[in-house]
Amino acid sequence: MNNNVAVITRMVIEAMEKQEASKNSENGYMVPIGVSGRHVHLTQEHVEELFGKGYQLTQKKELMGGQFASNEVVTIVGLKLRAIENVRILGPVRKGSQVEISKTDAIKLGVPAPIRESGDIKGSAPISIVGPKGVIYLKEGCIIAKRHIHMPPKDASLAGVVDGQEVSVIADNERGTTFNHVQIRVDDSFTLEMHIDTDEGNAANIRTGDTVRIIK
Amino acid sequence: MNNNVAVITRMVIEAMEKQEASKNSENGYMVPIGVSGRHVHLTQEHVEELFGKGYQLTQKKELMGGQFASNEVVTIVGLKLRAIENVRILGPVRKGSQVEISKTDAIKLGVPAPIRESGDIKGSAPISIVGPKGVIYLKEGCIIAKRHIHMPPKDASLAGVVDGQEVSVIADNERGTTFNHVQIRVDDSFTLEMHIDTDEGNAANIRTGDTVRIIK
Repeated sequence: MNNNVAVITRMVIEAMEKQEASKNSENGYMVPIGVSGRHVHLTQEHVEELFGKGYQLTQKKELMGGQFASNEVVTIVGLKLRAIENVRILGPVRKGSQVEISKTDAIKLGVPAPIRESGDIKGSAPISIVGPKGVIYLKEGCIIAKRHIHMPPKDASLAGVVDGQEVSVIADNERGTTFNHVQIRVDDSFTLEMHIDTDEGNAANIRTGDTVRIIK
Repeated sequence: MNNNVAVITRMVIEAMEKQEASKNSENGYMVPIGVSGRHVHLTQEHVEELFGKGYQLTQKKELMGGQFASNEVVTIVGLKLRAIENVRILGPVRKGSQVEISKTDAIKLGVPAPIRESGDIKGSAPISIVGPKGVIYLKEGCIIAKRHIHMPPKDASLAGVVDGQEVSVIADNERGTTFNHVQIRVDDSFTLEMHIDTDEGNAANIRTGDTVRIIK
């Protein structure tokens, strides 16, 4: 009896998923938006250079994918000595330090930041980071984040896309914008979300929690 | 003889235009981009309230369509008393005063500016404008400009579009962005150019002089 219930339950779930997938393939798979403001990732070594020996980042707000916004902020300064204050550090610490800004920030700072995937900082722009106890100069590490969609495998399967694929995504509102060259990233640890920066969010008039549609 | 030359010349020109039109209809009509920063249009009355009785705007730089960037700048202040300094006034003076900002500016100022065509300010956001000799408070007039393409009739004919039509336009670069709901505006006085704001330019990684393609 218990076994039958399990079987029937599974069949119903599968049927519902198929129906959902078919609906999604007609209209395009819906994805919630997460707009990222400018932020910094740091190694533990760099945290200590900026905030003092033995210093640990403290959590202000939990984010998706095990990350958090820390209470700690820094000032970033570009080659032309123009500065942006109060740039939030995201934790936990990473293996490499990296500064993610928007194109608008890059123009303000006078920094030739390339559009890159997170972590791909080779040959990217130099930037200085100022903390309360010290400063660091990154010879490279300042990028504009390339937009992408985080997906757990189940959503990728339902949407009919694979890791590394590029898709187009439509924000079908009053302004009406289609983002092309949007990279799909599939991982068990991911929550379904499309990550864009503040320029992209503002140009398309969308914000965190709004949904967009994959149109391939 | 002269008559023959004129006829042949006209035939060649027509053939070339047809060829161009056919090429354009395959690949989409190419349009140069003009990115507009935040700016203010003022009535003469408001110029005098801000800069003094009898004051005339002075030209800093000629722009397309008979407009100019003036040497005069103002500070704009939103409902939450947050300010943006050095906002350029565009001349010549108009019949209505209007402040055009980006969504990024609207967020910074805390102003609920709607996306509107230039001149369509009814029910738009209030804003204060501060000049060296006085201040004005606009009960309405602060908008985010709706993107559009200015075209002389000949380009409209070649592109196969009409005044008031909405088209999609692709910026086919590394970032890859399609702007939907782009309004065509046809007038003899217009120079072919797509007008977008700084958010849109930065999100798409394009700037004044780059070209985009109408894909309808």
